[in-house]
Amino acid sequence: MTKKSAKKNLKVHFEPDNTEVLVEPGANLLETAIDAGIRITASCGGAGVCGTCKVVIKSGEVDSIRTDKVSDKEWKQGTRQACQSKVLTDLSVHIPVESKLERAVVARERKGLGETVATGWKFRPLLSKYYLELPPPTLEDNASDLSRLLRGLKQKYNLSNMTVDFDVVRGLPKILRDGNWKVTATALVTAVKPKAADRRRPRLTKVEVGDTRKNHYSLAFDIGTTTVCGQLLDLNKGQVIAEGIDYNAQISYGQDVISRIVYCQKGGCPKLQKAVVGTINELIQQLLDKSGIDRQEIGHLAVAGNTTMIQILLGLDPQYIRLAPYTPAATFIPPVKGNEMGIEVGDHVYLFTFPLVSSYVGGDINAGIVGSGVHQRSQLTYYIDIGTNGEIVVGNSDWLVAAACSAGPAFEGGGIKHGMVATTGAIEDFDIDPATLEPTLGTIGDEKPKGICGSGLINIIAALLEAGVIGQNGEFYTDLPTKRIRPGKDGNEYVLAWASETQTNDDIVITEADIDNLIRAKAAMYAGCQTLVNSVGMTCCANLEQVIIAGAFGSHINIENGITIGLFPDIPRDRFTFIGNGSLLGARLTSFSTDLLDDARNVARMTTNLELSENNEFMKNYMAALFLPHTNADEFPSVKEKLEKLRKNKGKQRTTV
Amino acid sequence: MTKKSAKKNLKVHFEPDNTEVLVEPGANLLETAIDAGIRITASCGGAGVCGTCKVVIKSGEVDSIRTDKVSDKEWKQGTRQACQSKVLTDLSVHIPVESKLERAVVARERKGLGETVATGWKFRPLLSKYYLELPPPTLEDNASDLSRLLRGLKQKYNLSNMTVDFDVVRGLPKILRDGNWKVTATALVTAVKPKAADRRRPRLTKVEVGDTRKNHYSLAFDIGTTTVCGQLLDLNKGQVIAEGIDYNAQISYGQDVISRIVYCQKGGCPKLQKAVVGTINELIQQLLDKSGIDRQEIGHLAVAGNTTMIQILLGLDPQYIRLAPYTPAATFIPPVKGNEMGIEVGDHVYLFTFPLVSSYVGGDINAGIVGSGVHQRSQLTYYIDIGTNGEIVVGNSDWLVAAACSAGPAFEGGGIKHGMVATTGAIEDFDIDPATLEPTLGTIGDEKPKGICGSGLINIIAALLEAGVIGQNGEFYTDLPTKRIRPGKDGNEYVLAWASETQTNDDIVITEADIDNLIRAKAAMYAGCQTLVNSVGMTCCANLEQVIIAGAFGSHINIENGITIGLFPDIPRDRFTFIGNGSLLGARLTSFSTDLLDDARNVARMTTNLELSENNEFMKNYMAALFLPHTNADEFPSVKEKLEKLRKNKGKQRTTV
Repeated sequence: MTKKSAKKNLKVHFEPDNTEVLVEPGANLLETAIDAGIRITASCGGAGVCGTCKVVIKSGEVDSIRTDKVSDKEWKQGTRQACQSKVLTDLSVHIPVESKLERAVVARERKGLGETVATGWKFRPLLSKYYLELPPPTLEDNASDLSRLLRGLKQKYNLSNMTVDFDVVRGLPKILRDGNWKVTATALVTAVKPKAADRRRPRLTKVEVGDTRKNHYSLAFDIGTTTVCGQLLDLNKGQVIAEGIDYNAQISYGQDVISRIVYCQKGGCPKLQKAVVGTINELIQQLLDKSGIDRQEIGHLAVAGNTTMIQILLGLDPQYIRLAPYTPAATFIPPVKGNEMGIEVGDHVYLFTFPLVSSYVGGDINAGIVGSGVHQRSQLTYYIDIGTNGEIVVGNSDWLVAAACSAGPAFEGGGIKHGMVATTGAIEDFDIDPATLEPTLGTIGDEKPKGICGSGLINIIAALLEAGVIGQNGEFYTDLPTKRIRPGKDGNEYVLAWASETQTNDDIVITEADIDNLIRAKAAMYAGCQTLVNSVGMTCCANLEQVIIAGAFGSHINIENGITIGLFPDIPRDRFTFIGNGSLLGARLTSFSTDLLDDARNVARMTTNLELSENNEFMKNYMAALFLPHTNADEFPSVKEKLEKLRKNKGKQRTTV
Repeated sequence: MTKKSAKKNLKVHFEPDNTEVLVEPGANLLETAIDAGIRITASCGGAGVCGTCKVVIKSGEVDSIRTDKVSDKEWKQGTRQACQSKVLTDLSVHIPVESKLERAVVARERKGLGETVATGWKFRPLLSKYYLELPPPTLEDNASDLSRLLRGLKQKYNLSNMTVDFDVVRGLPKILRDGNWKVTATALVTAVKPKAADRRRPRLTKVEVGDTRKNHYSLAFDIGTTTVCGQLLDLNKGQVIAEGIDYNAQISYGQDVISRIVYCQKGGCPKLQKAVVGTINELIQQLLDKSGIDRQEIGHLAVAGNTTMIQILLGLDPQYIRLAPYTPAATFIPPVKGNEMGIEVGDHVYLFTFPLVSSYVGGDINAGIVGSGVHQRSQLTYYIDIGTNGEIVVGNSDWLVAAACSAGPAFEGGGIKHGMVATTGAIEDFDIDPATLEPTLGTIGDEKPKGICGSGLINIIAALLEAGVIGQNGEFYTDLPTKRIRPGKDGNEYVLAWASETQTNDDIVITEADIDNLIRAKAAMYAGCQTLVNSVGMTCCANLEQVIIAGAFGSHINIENGITIGLFPDIPRDRFTFIGNGSLLGARLTSFSTDLLDDARNVARMTTNLELSENNEFMKNYMAALFLPHTNADEFPSVKEKLEKLRKNKGKQRTTV
C-alpha cells in the first residue's frame, strides 16, 4: 500500500477522542484509527461487509470504496467505512457513538447464579512457597549452594526429584548469602503426572531472600475472542483479590475467530499477538493497582481460551485451524515463560495454558468442564457456551462428546441491523402490550437505546412470537393495527424505538433478516445438541439431566425465552444453571489444585470431538430446527402448549405458516 | 580510570602484529592490547607481579609503575610491564616474542598412550534422531499436529513420556506440511534417571522436514584454564570427525583460576565469559570448516571443565569458589541452551555441563574418571591431572576420594624465571654430559630455545640430580668445573643456553628459586596423594594398582623422571598409563552413551571431596615431601637405589644435605 519512501506527513485528527496521528498518504483509515488507539468496532475485520466501522469525514479527503452499507443520505453527510477508505489529505474524522467500543466492558452481575463447581479437590496450588533456614556451609560440609538448597527442601518438605530452572542457579549464591541462608523457594507443578504412579517433578522457579511466604499470588485469565477477563489470586487463602475485564484489543481486527485467522494469513499474527498481550498487560496493571500487590509477587499465570486465541497469544500460526481437517498446532502446550510472549510478569513466571480438545473446542471449554465438575458426576449434562462459535459438550464422568456450532455472530449482535455488544444502551429487556403492540424497553445502564444485544434479541423475538406479531417461521404479520410494523430494506421490520428516543437519532428496528439470523443461530446450537445426544445412542434431548450455561452472554439469557425460541431443550427449568465465565472459573480453580490439573489433562483426552461442518445428521437436525421453536412441535411440549393457550386467549385464529 | 567525557583519541600501534586501536588517555596498556586482539601473556592477570606482559615502547609516552620485574637495562631500552602502564600519548609498542602467546596451540601426539577407557557402555547417544512418515490428518482423525507427532514416535519407536520444548511447537505446523508429513524428530536426554526405576523423559528439541538422520552431529568440549579443546562428533558412527585446540582467550586476564576469579570480583565476569565464548566460537568455526558440516546439523554440546571455568562460561559469579568454605554455585547444572550463553549453535542446542564434585574438583575430573572407567574397576587407582591446580582422585568402583592440590603454576611454566607454556621453542628434553656438565637440549618444534616448559623442568631437574649438579635439597653444588653454574639474582643458576643460542637473545637459565618452586609443586601433588590414600585407611602409596595420568601436560612427562623427583609414587612402571585430555574423553564418550551420563551423576555423588588447604596431615606430608625425591627415602626405593648407584659410579662422596 505504501512505498518505502513515503513519509508520514498527513495529520489525521479523531473526534471526540481528540487524538491526532501522522500517516503516509494512502494509509488505511481503519488501521490509522487502531494505531491511534481509537477503540473502533470492525466486526468483519476490515473486509467491508459489516458496516460497523463507519466514520464521518468532517474535513479533508479520503479515497473510499462505497458499499451498500452506506446509504445515500449517509454518503452525502460524509459517512464512510473506515476500512474502505484511504487517507489522501489531512483529515478531521468523527467516530459516531455506534462505531465506538466502550472503553470498559460493563461488568454485570446476574443474581442467583447456580453453584455448579468441581468438588472433592484438595487445596494444593500449582505454585508453592517453601521457607528454609539452611545451615551455612563449613569446610566439613561445603556442598554447592544448589545442593544445599535442594537438601533443605528434601529434609524439611520431603521434596525430591525437582527440576531446576537454570535462572535459579544464576542468582543463588548471592541470594543465599544476602538472606544469611534463610530463603524462600518457589516451586511450580507445570506438568501433570504422565501416569498415576509417576512422581511429580516440581520445578524450582525462584529463590528469594528471607521468608516471603505471605506474598504468594498468581493470575488466572480467560482470553475470549471478544473480552479478556483476569483475576489476581491469593494462593495462601485460595481467594480472588481483584478482577478485571476488558475488550480483547484484537476486536478491531475482526469480531470472530475466522476473521482473526484470515488476518493472520495475511501476515498479521504478530500484530494480533501484540494486541491481546497489550490487553492482558493493561489488565494486569489494573489488578496490581487495585490490590496494591507488587508485580514481582505474581508467581504464575494460568490462561484458558479458545484454540485460536491461545495459538495467537503464543505466536503459533492459526491458519490450519480454519482449513479442513482443522488441526490445532498442539492440544497440550509445553510450559513457556510469560515474558517470552511479552506479558509483563517476572522472569520466573510460567504461562500455563489449559489443554485444548480440538480446533474449535478449546481450553476455555475444557476449563469450564473441569471448573463446573461435569467430569465428576454421573448425571448426563449438557454444557453450553454460547457465542459466535457456540461450543457444546454432552457427557458425564464416563464419557464426553463435544462440538462447535457455527452459530454466526447474531448472539453477539453481529449481522443484526442494529445489533451491538452487550454494553450501555443495548436493549435487553423487551415487553409488548398485546392490545396496542407498543413496546416497553429496558436497556443496559438505563441509557437511551443505541442498539440490540444478543440476549435482548432473544427476549424480543420470544415476545413478538408470544404476542402473535411474528409467526413461527419468523415472519411478521402485516395485517396488525400498528405503524411500528413496516416494510424495510431487509424485509418487514418492527420499530423498537423511534429516532427521537435513541442515542443514534435513527429508528432502531428489528427486521425479518435479523430474526432469520437468530433462528439460524439457535438452530445450529440446538441441532448440535441433538447430534451429540444422538451420537451416544440417545434419541432425545429430554434425557439431559443438567444444563450448564456458561459465558458472559449465556448468563444474561432468559431461560424461558431461550426455550420459547428453541435455543434450549424444553426440559424442567430447575435443571438449568449458569456458571458465568466457565473458562475463568476453571483457570482459577486449577491454579488452586494440582488435582484439577490432572483432571484438565484427562478431560482433554477423554473428550471426543465431533466435526459438525460435514456431518449429515447435523444438517438434517439443523434444517428441522429452522422454526420457532422447532418444526417438530413435540420436541418443545411446554412451548407448544403455551403458544396454543395464548392464541386461544387472544381469540385469534391465525395458524402457523 | 577514565572520565565519561574522555575521548578515544590516542592511537596505539602494536608491532609485529601491525594492529592499531584508538584509546582514551590513561587507558591501561594491557587492556588496550587485549582489546586490540593481541595475544599477550599476563600470568598474574595484571597484578604486576609476574613480569610476563613486558612490552617495549618504541615511541610515545606511558605512565608506568616500575617493579623489580624490569631490570635497569630493560627500563632504559623502553621495556615496560603493559599491565603497569597507562597510555599518555600516541604509541608504537613492540610485543617481544617471549610476551606473545602463539596463535595456535601446538598439538603434540604422544606415542604409545595407554588405552584406559570406560567399557561396557552401550552406544546410545544422548541425542537421537527419529524418522517418521505420519498419516496426514483427516476429518475422522484431526488430532493436533503435536499429538500426531508424539503418537508416531510412540508407535514406531516406543517413545513415550516426552518433554516437549515450546519452540518445537512454534514451527511444527509448517514443518509437518512442508515435509508432507515425513519428518525427522530430534530427542535429547538432558537428565539422568533420578532412580533406576524411573523412566527417562527424552526432550523433543527439533523437528525437521524429511529424513535428516544422516546429518547427526554434536560437539564435545574441554574448557581448560589454559586451553580449550573441541571435537565434532558423528553421532551415527560414534566417531570424532574433526578436532581443534586453542588457548582460552581468558589467559590474557590471568593464568590461573584464582586470577580469573579475582578479575570477576572486580566486575570482569561478563568480559571473561565473552572471552571464552569467543574461543569456543572460533573453534566451532574451525571444526565446521574442516568437516564441511553445516552449523544447523550440530544438535548438542557437551562441555567439561573445572568449576571456575564452567561457572564463568555460564555467567555464574565464581567468587565463592575462592572464599572459604569454597562452595560452587551448583554441582549439577540444569540444562540451558548454548546460544543463551552466546555460543553460536542452533536455537535448539542444549549445553550439557559435566557434574562437578566441588569448587576445586570439577567436571573435568569427573569426566576423566568416567571416561577412563576408574569407577568401573575394583583396582585401586590414582587419577592425576597435573596443572596449576593439580586434581587427584584415589578410588575404585566402591569409593572415590578427591582433592585439589595448590601446586602453583610451576608445571605450566609460571613462576619459573624462563618458564613458558609448552609450545614451540620450549626446552623439553634435557641431557647432561656427566663429565663436561654440558647440556644437550631438545625443544618443541626443534626451534631455538625460548624458555622452559613444565615437562622440560622435570627432565632438567631429574637430570641435574642424577648428574650430581644439584643435591636432594635442590641446591647447586658450586664446586663443579663448569662456568654454567653461577650466582644469579634468584640464588645460584645453571645456564641452559647462552644468549647467542636463543630466540630471546638472553641466557636461558634454571635457578635455585625455580627448582624450589618445582619441589613445592611436586610435593603438593605427592602429599595430596598420600593424604587421600591415608584417608581411606591405607598407609602407603605403594598400594596403588594403577596410575592414570591425564592432561595435556601430564602426557608429556617422563614417568621415570617424574618418579625421580618424587612427583609420582615409586611403583612398578607398567602400572602407569596416560589418557591425554581425560576431560574431553569423558565429554565425548558421554555424548555417545546415556549409560555414562548416569555414571557421571553417580561419580559426582559418590566422590568424597577432601579440602587439603586446612588439613593438618596434608601439611605434614607436604613438609616431608620438600626434598628430591622425599625426606623418607624408603618411600622411593628404586630412586634411592639409583642415586646410590650413580654416586658410586661417579666415585663421588657427596652426601645429601
